[in-house]
Order: sequence, then structure tokens, then C-alpha cells
Amino acid sequence: MPDPKPQPRPTRIGVAAPASRLDPALAERVSALAAARYPGGAVELVFHPQCFQTSGHFAGEDAARAAAFLEIANDPAFDALWFARGGYGSCRLAEDVLPKLEPAAQAKSYLGYSDAGSLLAGLYALGFQNLAHGPMPSDIRRKGGEAAVARALAWLVERDPDALEASVGATTKTAAFNITILSHLLGTFLQPDLTGHVLMFEETEEQMYRIDRALFHITSNSGIRKAAGIRLGRCSDILPNDPEFVLGEEEIVTHWCAKSGIPYFGRADIGHDIDNKVVPFGTL
Amino acid sequence: MPDPKPQPRPTRIGVAAPASRLDPALAERVSALAAARYPGGAVELVFHPQCFQTSGHFAGEDAARAAAFLEIANDPAFDALWFARGGYGSCRLAEDVLPKLEPAAQAKSYLGYSDAGSLLAGLYALGFQNLAHGPMPSDIRRKGGEAAVARALAWLVERDPDALEASVGATTKTAAFNITILSHLLGTFLQPDLTGHVLMFEETEEQMYRIDRALFHITSNSGIRKAAGIRLGRCSDILPNDPEFVLGEEEIVTHWCAKSGIPYFGRADIGHDIDNKVVPFGTL
Repeated sequence: MPDPKPQPRPTRIGVAAPASRLDPALAERVSALAAARYPGGAVELVFHPQCFQTSGHFAGEDAARAAAFLEIANDPAFDALWFARGGYGSCRLAEDVLPKLEPAAQAKSYLGYSDAGSLLAGLYALGFQNLAHGPMPSDIRRKGGEAAVARALAWLVERDPDALEASVGATTKTAAFNITILSHLLGTFLQPDLTGHVLMFEETEEQMYRIDRALFHITSNSGIRKAAGIRLGRCSDILPNDPEFVLGEEEIVTHWCAKSGIPYFGRADIGHDIDNKVVPFGTL
Repeated sequence: MPDPKPQPRPTRIGVAAPASRLDPALAERVSALAAARYPGGAVELVFHPQCFQTSGHFAGEDAARAAAFLEIANDPAFDALWFARGGYGSCRLAEDVLPKLEPAAQAKSYLGYSDAGSLLAGLYALGFQNLAHGPMPSDIRRKGGEAAVARALAWLVERDPDALEASVGATTKTAAFNITILSHLLGTFLQPDLTGHVLMFEETEEQMYRIDRALFHITSNSGIRKAAGIRLGRCSDILPNDPEFVLGEEEIVTHWCAKSGIPYFGRADIGHDIDNKVVPFGTL
């Protein structure tokens, strides 16, 4: 009798929630989707129990969220750390978590967006190579959200080029951020060197005057002025502005690009929605 | 017949609105109050017509607001430039206005708060000496707002020590900011050197999670970490947070002070209200 064919080692993805809590029912749906797309145990998706904790606004206290993040990041058995969802809270962990990352953390992939951008930025500032802005498990709550989650898995498991934002190329440095999150890390230890990068920005549930103010802030930073250019993703569910702001999001970005001398390269296919594509930090 | 007694030169105060529009009826009330308190033409209060312009969200287009600010700032006949009101828009002028300031601008007093903090910060970064955080003409709209406006005039005209926030002393360096405004100028050309300063912060109409995030940002900046300490003014009209943030504003500030090693010195008597006291930038 021949030896059984050796199974390829499964891709092990750990999920942590450094910001807001994930609904366990959503985690089950994501696990089912992963099992259906990658049958035979080819993908092991492990939701850290911390994802489902509650402490006020957050998925558990700062210490619990930091510990869960470090457990997954520093465990060499995991290939990737996937941010469960955004909300708010990642920045509260950053100064504790970043100095405790071990070599196993550097070897790992990271995927998330929105509030997760605080930690992605800090990891990039530390020289981590496998970071990307893209869908999270919580996106399955959106109508048609399975497509976003499948895209994230295709990136994490297969490095599927179809998951990528269309302007991402082999030689162009890129990075992507939520506008408000990037604004709130400028001038801190979380700010990475983005010289020569094409920066893609997206936003949701903000008033236009806030987007304008954040883009003043971002484009007035001397580090950001060394970027190769800016692309604008989708700004969704804009909140009312009183008085009416008049300018739309693309007029705002082109205004600040012109003022700051940063080239504007057009739109990017990212945002708080199911079409949100993957944007790696750095080159592919 | 004896010569008439020489009249002292009047204090001339120019008002500009680099952010949102001022209601002309409020300007009339402020002028009447100034005339009543300083009779015989001892104070000349000049509202630049730009204060009453409208362009979308703003008191006129960027160019009109910048021109009015420069007209008053660079005119040696004015002793002070008083910011008409906050809202949003000062940061949009900063990079155009600051390089065009002439020696007459440096000799002048400036008073305002909230959105005006963007320009006050930029002026302080340029080495201007007579800047203060305090009430504006628009404060007359508040119930009992005459007290705030009278306090501002007492500072601008008489340098009345009773106008000052109680912890302001002759030798302590101080500065005061709206939390969101300070956050949005960190890491830009507007950020002044605040080494050794007691920093006083206030906020209005924000959600607690935003205040927490902005205080992460502020206290994580290496320049701010050189401050002597932080005092917390009032955080008024806090908007609902979903889920409930649990922590109050003083718990948030003490959290971030402890994390960052910046001493917390207690409360400050400033805020978006009629009790808002004057805080000079630098020493008295």
C-alpha cells in the first residue's frame, strides 16, 4: 500500500480585535465561508476569544486586547493576523504592543483597514513587510459582504492578484489609510516613512468639513509631502454639514494636493464597502 | 484759555473671521458693549466687512479671508487682531497668510480660541509674543455672553489680570487649545515648540471616543511630551457615543498623561462658555 499523499501544511490565520467587539455570529459565518472555499482543512481560521469580549466601547480591556494581539503575532504557528473589525481602539494598544513583538511577528502577514490602520502604520514604521489594507471578517455583515471576505482570504491564503487594487503594481510602493486614522497618527511613533509611496485614502461616516480639515493636516505634513502621489477611495455615508460644505470629496483632495504639491492620481477602488480591494504596504 | 487735555490714543481692535461667518447683529451688540465700557472713543472696534461674507461653509472664500486677516495684521494702526468666531476654516489660510506677515503683525495682540487655534499656533511657531486663547465676539450670543466679551476686551485694552485663567502666573509658560484643533496641526508647520509649557485643553460637541483618540494623538507627540504638564478645561455638549464610552473626559486625560509621562495638573477654567478665561501663549 503506498504512503498517503502528504497534505500541504494548512494556512493558519489568527483573528484579533484590537478595537471594537466582533459579533460571534459573524465569526461563524466567516469560518463557514473559509471552510467552504478551502475544504479539507487547507485554511485554519482561529478567532481569539478576545474578539467577543466587551469592555465599554471596546472588545475587552486594553490589556486583554494587547495580549490577544501579541499571542497571535508572536506565535510562529500562525501565518497571518487578520484584524476582526474596526471601530475604535487600536491606537490605545500601540505603545504597549509594538515593543513586545518578536521575530515570529515580523514573518507574518497582517490584513485590516479603518481603525486597524493605527497598528498597520506602526508595524510598517518598524519595518514589517507583509502588511495590507483590505477587508476584515466584520465585512461579512454587509449585503454581499461574502465577496469582500472571500477577497481577503484569497489574498491571505493565495496572494491572489485579483484581490489587489487595480493600480497596485510590482514596482510601485503603495499604502492605504482611512483619512481620520492617518491624521491621528501624524507626528507620533506610529507614522511610517511613506516617501515615494502612492497613498490611497478612504473615509466613512464623517462630515465634509472634518474630511477637509484632516486633509489639510495630512497634506501639510512634511513626511506625507514626500509621497509619490495620492489616490482617493470612496467616502461613504457622509454626515450632514451645517452650513452645507459645497465641496465634494474629490474637490477637497484635489485642492489640498494642489496646495501641497502632491500629485493627484485619481480614484482608488477602496472604501468601507464590499468592493474594498487589497492594497499592500510597500511593494508587492 | 488752556490747551485741551491731550486725549490718550484709543486702542484700535480689528476683527477678522478666518473661519465661519459672524452674524452682523452680534457685531453690533459687541460694538455697543465696547462703547459702553470704554466711552469717549477710548476703544475703536473695527469689524472687517469680510466677517459678514458667506462662501459655502466659510465667511467668504479663502482668498477673501486671508486678505482680511493680512489687512488687519499688517496695519500698524491696529493694536490687536480679534478673531470673530470659530467654526472651521483657519487652517485653510495658514500656509498663505503666515509668510506674508510684516513687522507690524508681530507687534500686535491676537485673541481667539477654538478653530482660531490653528493660526494662533502658527503665529506662536513664528515667534509672535502677544497671543492669547480667550473669548471672541461671537460669544455674545451665549446667555450671559456679555461677561465673556467684556473679559476679552479687558484683556485686549487693559491687560486686566482678572481676565486670566487662575493658574496663569508671571513665570509659567502657558498655552491653550481646543483638543481637536491641536490634534489636527501636529506634525505640520503650525506646530509650535511647547517645551516647558503648561498646556490647557478644552473641547465641545465631540463624542468621547474622538476625544480619547485625539488625546492619544496629542500625548504621543514627542514635542508635546516636553510640556511641563496638562490642565483640562471644560468638555461641553458631548455627543452620544455608541456603545457608551464609559470613561469621562478627566479619566481620559489622566489615562493619557499617565501613559505618556506628562504630569496632569488638574482642571483649567476654559471652555466653550461664558466663563472661558484668558490664557496667554508663553509667559505674561
